[in-house]
Amino acid sequence: VESQRPEDQDRAEDLLDAILPKSGGAHRIGISGAPGVGKSTFIESFGLHLLTEGKSVAVLAVDPSSGVSGGSILGDKARMHRLAQRPGAFIRPSPSAQTLGGVARRTREAMLLCEAAGYDVVVIETVGVGQSEARVAGMVDFFLVLLHPGGGDELQGVKRGILEFADVIAVNKADGDTLAQARITQAEYSSALRHLARGAGVWVPRVVLTSARSGEGIAELWALIVEHRSQALASGAHAERRRAQNRHWLWSLLEDSLLETFRAHPSVRDRMEEVERLVEAGQLAPGRGARDLLGRFGGAGRLRE
Amino acid sequence: VESQRPEDQDRAEDLLDAILPKSGGAHRIGISGAPGVGKSTFIESFGLHLLTEGKSVAVLAVDPSSGVSGGSILGDKARMHRLAQRPGAFIRPSPSAQTLGGVARRTREAMLLCEAAGYDVVVIETVGVGQSEARVAGMVDFFLVLLHPGGGDELQGVKRGILEFADVIAVNKADGDTLAQARITQAEYSSALRHLARGAGVWVPRVVLTSARSGEGIAELWALIVEHRSQALASGAHAERRRAQNRHWLWSLLEDSLLETFRAHPSVRDRMEEVERLVEAGQLAPGRGARDLLGRFGGAGRLRE
Repeated sequence: VESQRPEDQDRAEDLLDAILPKSGGAHRIGISGAPGVGKSTFIESFGLHLLTEGKSVAVLAVDPSSGVSGGSILGDKARMHRLAQRPGAFIRPSPSAQTLGGVARRTREAMLLCEAAGYDVVVIETVGVGQSEARVAGMVDFFLVLLHPGGGDELQGVKRGILEFADVIAVNKADGDTLAQARITQAEYSSALRHLARGAGVWVPRVVLTSARSGEGIAELWALIVEHRSQALASGAHAERRRAQNRHWLWSLLEDSLLETFRAHPSVRDRMEEVERLVEAGQLAPGRGARDLLGRFGGAGRLRE
Repeated sequence: VESQRPEDQDRAEDLLDAILPKSGGAHRIGISGAPGVGKSTFIESFGLHLLTEGKSVAVLAVDPSSGVSGGSILGDKARMHRLAQRPGAFIRPSPSAQTLGGVARRTREAMLLCEAAGYDVVVIETVGVGQSEARVAGMVDFFLVLLHPGGGDELQGVKRGILEFADVIAVNKADGDTLAQARITQAEYSSALRHLARGAGVWVPRVVLTSARSGEGIAELWALIVEHRSQALASGAHAERRRAQNRHWLWSLLEDSLLETFRAHPSVRDRMEEVERLVEAGQLAPGRGARDLLGRFGGAGRLRE
């Protein structure tokens, strides 16, 4: 599924079609957190707890940057070695990929494979600093954001928009010297989230304390995730979210493919950099620049509706 | 510029090219607020204050829904009649348009025309409940969000993501019976915003009180907007924001045009509804659905990079 060879892609399509009826059964959970928040340790603790609950778990990483550094295959397994060794757990390192679209696409497909293989929970991990969060939030049933204990300043490593997607925020490292600070952070975010309420009748995001090191709070967090699912199943929100996930997936495939085809077109590629430079500098009207590039793409661009 | 006739579009392109060197001089301000927050009265007060400061002002409305109702031409002028009558002020009602992309595109172009015509300040008004906010935030130098006095519940009319874009939040109706409540709301949002801090070294969003009815707070707000501009000019943030606006504009034109061309393709259009329905219901793999539609578009879709 991750291969870029055309003949593999055709076989992958057939495979995905064949497993489609067997997919959809897992609890899809996105976990986002900036570097340094203790994400690997947290996911390991969380995964080990799921195993004690009799659940099997697959962990998929979405991290475009680790694809660049290239060293993630050993890296991901090494950082969750206790979980990786356990039967019932599967850890898939970040695939290397050129584009975010590519990463998200393969992650969705990998998720379906894990579901069809029978994993009860699929965790999709993101680094919380880039554009991948919206993509991941659009493919999961539950989105968890991990934060440091500490005030607003610490948040600067976290992209501002991420809290929008959070079903629960966990303030991690709620132990030892940082416990008091974690409690303050919890209170502050609880207050902040009240002002970012979503529509009526839906889940109200909560802020909880966890310690990945001691395992404290992990069982309570899992209970909260289970409660979220029960509510969503009862209210129809779950079914609606799955429908939206599928629609969103279709449209991201279409948009990515149209843009990639456009960017890869030889005469577009030849001219793109120059057009971007002139437009940024205010020396070329964006409309004229767009029309120029769309014309090269082969007259496919009627610029106005 | 707002015409959809091809011959007008060509002339509009020429016009936009010709004015490009004269555009870019205005202070571009986005103002967003849910229905009922007193937006029209606020913008009128704000505009009248700008006139007393010797600034000319153009107000452009982005409101896809008013295009649907169709009655905005009289509507917009009627609701700001004191401002509309003054020399130095120009109010452009929402153009009727089928698509958000279309509205945003024409709003950008109308903004350039106003700049080239010499307006010192261009206000772009949005309703704060739809997708238009991200578009508008991507084309202005300063983004103001208007809120009601009142707790978190009142916020449910405001799309959660909007606060992300705010350079300043103004709690309006800070007068009479609602003054005390406005002060509480100000304190609460000040606290919430601290936890949504952006990158280091940049503007920290503030929460201010205004009364559009009495004019209280409007002069102080304008002083804050001027301060924001001075800081941004000095730090280079302004130049970078303008470059980003241009790049963003180019890419939204390209994306809109590619998607519109795709959707309008007859064999895509014939099949789209069925594919969406099957994909939503989980009966067709999104990848296969996308490939089907892209194939109809004429082999332009190599689905994977």
